[in-house]
Amino acid sequence: MGAVSASLDDLPLRADLRGLTPYGAPQAALPVALNVNENTHPVPEDVADDVLDSVARALRDVNRYPDREFTALREGFAKYLGHGLSADQIWAANGSNEVLQHLLQAFAGPGRTAFGFAPTYSMYPLLTRATGATYQAGTRGVDYTLGAADAAAQIEAADPDVVFLCAPNNPTGTPLGLDVIEAVYDAANGIVIVDEAYQEFAPRESRSALTLLPGRERLVVSRTMSKAFAFAGARVGYLAADAAIIDALRLVRLPYHLSALTQAAAGAALRHAPAMLAMVDEIVAQRDRISATLDALGYQPFESWTNFVLFGGVDDPAATWQGLYDRGVLIRDVGLPRSLRVTAGTETESTAFLDALASLGPGGARV
Amino acid sequence: MGAVSASLDDLPLRADLRGLTPYGAPQAALPVALNVNENTHPVPEDVADDVLDSVARALRDVNRYPDREFTALREGFAKYLGHGLSADQIWAANGSNEVLQHLLQAFAGPGRTAFGFAPTYSMYPLLTRATGATYQAGTRGVDYTLGAADAAAQIEAADPDVVFLCAPNNPTGTPLGLDVIEAVYDAANGIVIVDEAYQEFAPRESRSALTLLPGRERLVVSRTMSKAFAFAGARVGYLAADAAIIDALRLVRLPYHLSALTQAAAGAALRHAPAMLAMVDEIVAQRDRISATLDALGYQPFESWTNFVLFGGVDDPAATWQGLYDRGVLIRDVGLPRSLRVTAGTETESTAFLDALASLGPGGARV
Repeated sequence: MGAVSASLDDLPLRADLRGLTPYGAPQAALPVALNVNENTHPVPEDVADDVLDSVARALRDVNRYPDREFTALREGFAKYLGHGLSADQIWAANGSNEVLQHLLQAFAGPGRTAFGFAPTYSMYPLLTRATGATYQAGTRGVDYTLGAADAAAQIEAADPDVVFLCAPNNPTGTPLGLDVIEAVYDAANGIVIVDEAYQEFAPRESRSALTLLPGRERLVVSRTMSKAFAFAGARVGYLAADAAIIDALRLVRLPYHLSALTQAAAGAALRHAPAMLAMVDEIVAQRDRISATLDALGYQPFESWTNFVLFGGVDDPAATWQGLYDRGVLIRDVGLPRSLRVTAGTETESTAFLDALASLGPGGARV
Repeated sequence: MGAVSASLDDLPLRADLRGLTPYGAPQAALPVALNVNENTHPVPEDVADDVLDSVARALRDVNRYPDREFTALREGFAKYLGHGLSADQIWAANGSNEVLQHLLQAFAGPGRTAFGFAPTYSMYPLLTRATGATYQAGTRGVDYTLGAADAAAQIEAADPDVVFLCAPNNPTGTPLGLDVIEAVYDAANGIVIVDEAYQEFAPRESRSALTLLPGRERLVVSRTMSKAFAFAGARVGYLAADAAIIDALRLVRLPYHLSALTQAAAGAALRHAPAMLAMVDEIVAQRDRISATLDALGYQPFESWTNFVLFGGVDDPAATWQGLYDRGVLIRDVGLPRSLRVTAGTETESTAFLDALASLGPGGARV
């Protein structure tokens, strides 16, 4: 074949996909990459060694299909999450996106609707539409907060089959009260997913939505190893819910969807949860330092319970993003007015960002 | 929560999923497991060592998201497949099931149809329906063969959006002529997927459908590392097609769907293709021995170009399956009349199967 290739227009692509472009933040090799809310701390060496030992054991049987029920890994997640959870209440997949996809395949899909409070995680509408369902965007109040009465009223009016509650919220960092989750659950007839991808970065004394699971069979709490566990490259998301939800997901997952290597690596990392979570404290300290410095520089950082900070007061987000890029610092323009989002990196990376931003002058760069 | 759990009927599950049970062969720990067409030879130690080295390198950056374009791995597949293919004509995913799912999401889905010639791979209808499309089953001739004129006439009548051609066919082992693929392609307006999961077990001189790719922008050839590469546990499927097809799949894949560990492990195994494929010759020898012995025992083995043998002449498939199970040998009842399917194992495993079957007497066990 080689040089001559057809174009996408020559193919019988689905009509609803025509004209779309693939999702994904730019993957640029810059010295300081603070654009996709990764944990910029590498996995500690002793943890990596243990992960590798587990992978080595898994390789002995890699000619065989993996445990389709990933039983040992589910036990590991149940133990890590606590709250009296058992393995039959746990599900996992290749990243939390696939976890959410499974939920949408089981409870949304063609003829059904999913609902999220904008601005929120940009994959929710994409995942929803990819399963043939309709996505509806609700609204948030001042500073992107969400109150119980407001949220419940919106859900009652929309009556969606699936509700996404990102807690704390991406891309804004906003905390979400458990009272809001309770009110939304009571107002909803469908599945309520609390996406706690960033929960480990919330204050220690804050309560997880896991505490709300007992007696709420339509409630799901999803998590990821990509952030707190510094495991974005391993692609492991998971959730806790009533065991009946797990039964539903078994109907839509591809058989053997979690590789033996993924199961081995994730299980080993979980055994080192205390070491992995020690990095969280450092990241939280940098996040708070970034917020304080942004404030001192005249920007308006929004309250964040995550590993990133959204900040307003940017005169020209595109120009400022480019100005930082030109100084070797990659952050994210999430499309919110006069705002940019930066991941809390190591102390060195965070300093590099703050210095680069300060060098652009008050309000950032302008064209 | 603990003891009290809701039932699936309490949940707002999609109507089309109600009453279904999860797909999957029984995963029983028997001494001789010849039921799911795995490669029963472990990965050679030097290959496993190299895979582990690659995984160790990947772990250094596992806190970062993986290369979303898995560029190095696509180059590896292009090189392995040959036929002048380049990396922009390659796609990969977590098992060939996910590869097929991506194709169905892009080219089938709600309101569209996919078509396969029964009996064939049992995942085709499940994958099709899971994307909201309709599945239509065509027919095969004597001994499960498929002729060009017959196949083309069926496709012309059905006019599906996606055609599955399993070559050689699972669960029957049947070879498929390239003339059939050409005829089906010419008769079809939709995407034609040639599923070559077992191609490496076909005679060396047989031509792959890869030779038909030039000038056929709707043709797709899918492969897997699960069989010839003894990598079922690592979950790696891939395909070759026109670069425009790859562009279409980028629209439906989840971002970062292939983990850094998967990319590293698969790339390393590919570099050892000659060592991995050496096992294929041993397996083919056992397959032919199984066929010859089954014939001598009075059964009717069907011609196989795969790593398994479907054989007829079984008086009571369920009783014979159970009789073998009781003797520590797990094979597969694929639901075809008077037939069972057995994977070609190592010499020892194949002997264990043949001895156990012989011990059941002519025609197998009866209740």
